[in-house]
Amino acid sequence: MSEIVKTPEPPYYAVIFTSVRMEDDNGYSKMADEMVALVSKQPGFLGYESVRGIDGFGITVSYWESLDAIKRWKDDPLHQIAQNMGKEIWYKHFATRICKVERDNFQTGGHE
Amino acid sequence: MSEIVKTPEPPYYAVIFTSVRMEDDNGYSKMADEMVALVSKQPGFLGYESVRGIDGFGITVSYWESLDAIKRWKDDPLHQIAQNMGKEIWYKHFATRICKVERDNFQTGGHE
Repeated sequence: MSEIVKTPEPPYYAVIFTSVRMEDDNGYSKMADEMVALVSKQPGFLGYESVRGIDGFGITVSYWESLDAIKRWKDDPLHQIAQNMGKEIWYKHFATRICKVERDNFQTGGHE
Repeated sequence: MSEIVKTPEPPYYAVIFTSVRMEDDNGYSKMADEMVALVSKQPGFLGYESVRGIDGFGITVSYWESLDAIKRWKDDPLHQIAQNMGKEIWYKHFATRICKVERDNFQTGGHE
């Protein structure tokens, strides 16, 4: 299960990646595991939150210290291969949005 | 199924709402339907994308023309009631992040 990332005080950056998967795996799961291992070592990476529904629609949000850190990750050679395979094989449609997080608010429910 | 929202040229705003649901419904589904109907009528609302996993972890991203539009929605009286019930009854934990979308990129996979 994904968890809510404990990000630092704003401002920081978020990449909202919304996608619709193709039905067949075609190596997606293995590459996804590799990307998680790789991104976790990236300078400026703060964490990610991810959910995919059984209908193939998914949202992944990754958090970053800076736009430079996002650009370095985008340009990573292995990540470039994954991006190309995503475009060619794994996704029907996707959108990437680069955002500056200006404010945030974390809460725990009143039952606890 | 949620769909990728066709947002306008940046800049625009996003609210990333990440949450972990309690197991019982307790009126959540009915209120969620009402909130979708209500938010769709809000000035400055551009659309939303939402996924929840079977483990209760969910991400909803709503898109807005301006920070003022986000504030008006936050202050809506019925939405205020929903926010309080979310905090008291429906969510174990949640985080809200207010973001300025600075760049975006939409693509359709190479198979089509």
